[in-house]
Amino acid sequence: MKHFLPVALEHASRLVNHGPTVLVTSADGSRRNVMAAAWSMPVEFTPPRIAVVIDKRTYTRELVAASGAFGICIPGTALMDLTYALGSTSGRETDKFERYGIEARPGPVLGMPLLETGCAAWLECRLISEPHTEDAYDTCFAEVVAAGADERVFAGGHWSYREDNADLQTIHHLGGGNFMRSGGMLRARQL
Amino acid sequence: MKHFLPVALEHASRLVNHGPTVLVTSADGSRRNVMAAAWSMPVEFTPPRIAVVIDKRTYTRELVAASGAFGICIPGTALMDLTYALGSTSGRETDKFERYGIEARPGPVLGMPLLETGCAAWLECRLISEPHTEDAYDTCFAEVVAAGADERVFAGGHWSYREDNADLQTIHHLGGGNFMRSGGMLRARQL
Repeated sequence: MKHFLPVALEHASRLVNHGPTVLVTSADGSRRNVMAAAWSMPVEFTPPRIAVVIDKRTYTRELVAASGAFGICIPGTALMDLTYALGSTSGRETDKFERYGIEARPGPVLGMPLLETGCAAWLECRLISEPHTEDAYDTCFAEVVAAGADERVFAGGHWSYREDNADLQTIHHLGGGNFMRSGGMLRARQL
Repeated sequence: MKHFLPVALEHASRLVNHGPTVLVTSADGSRRNVMAAAWSMPVEFTPPRIAVVIDKRTYTRELVAASGAFGICIPGTALMDLTYALGSTSGRETDKFERYGIEARPGPVLGMPLLETGCAAWLECRLISEPHTEDAYDTCFAEVVAAGADERVFAGGHWSYREDNADLQTIHHLGGGNFMRSGGMLRARQL
């Protein structure tokens, strides 16, 4: 049963607005990788743009520089252990997709490997070349060219955190393998 | 009773590692302001550096450009309604500190207004001038020069989310006034 639906690009920023820990996927020819990243944020609604910190020593950075593209996948709570493992190992020595039995589909625009099972959403991103910020701050800017989300947790441009979809709610790395898990949704009152 | 203690600068990135919605405070001479911002992230551990998106049309941006500094305050769940209100009004027309009865203390290094009551932590930041990224992406890079946290929720360089400090746990804006609230902490298992 497929639960992923396309997300309108003007709603893409909402997928990462609340600061989830994400997976950064990359590919160049037959080489591919997936790493965890806690440091990402939207920077613009329209055109949808994001920034993500990718250390220049990582294999991911090498592949992103080569292809000019990457994927952002947003793991649900059920993938917490995998997310931590993907952030603690390098893809230079081992294909992490094979090692951890991760299934990926090619993204619709750029062909980046995208995870759906266990994930709440994904974004496919085209790198915007910014040599200075990439060098000085390891900060990579990118335009979001496609997005999708599991309709059970994000639909019609909005997140819906309920008791019955806790496994798909996002995780937020506090450090050292400790994650903040969701306790649902609160609505602000007008002051 | 004072609960705020200094945070070692090498631990400052952990205060925003998990993507909380924050308050950006600013001051220049007798002018001051406070706004909400969902888009921020660390970019470096040592020296501790962060990036935050501050729209170039905001009063905050004007004050930050003038003073070269800002504060980041991390509201707890008890301040959710206030945070939403601070993100929906401009400081050009009204002093939001007075309007909402917000107490602020001057930061130890740069004198930025810092909120403690109801907040989990704060960072005092010195802008790193990056005209291109400020212009193209509204993205402001800064060095963290001081940090403090409420010892009841962050101590010894680590967050501790427990049932007895839920009011101090961070909030994460999902959009449209809906926030993800914390459901406590989960520890990843080694795969």
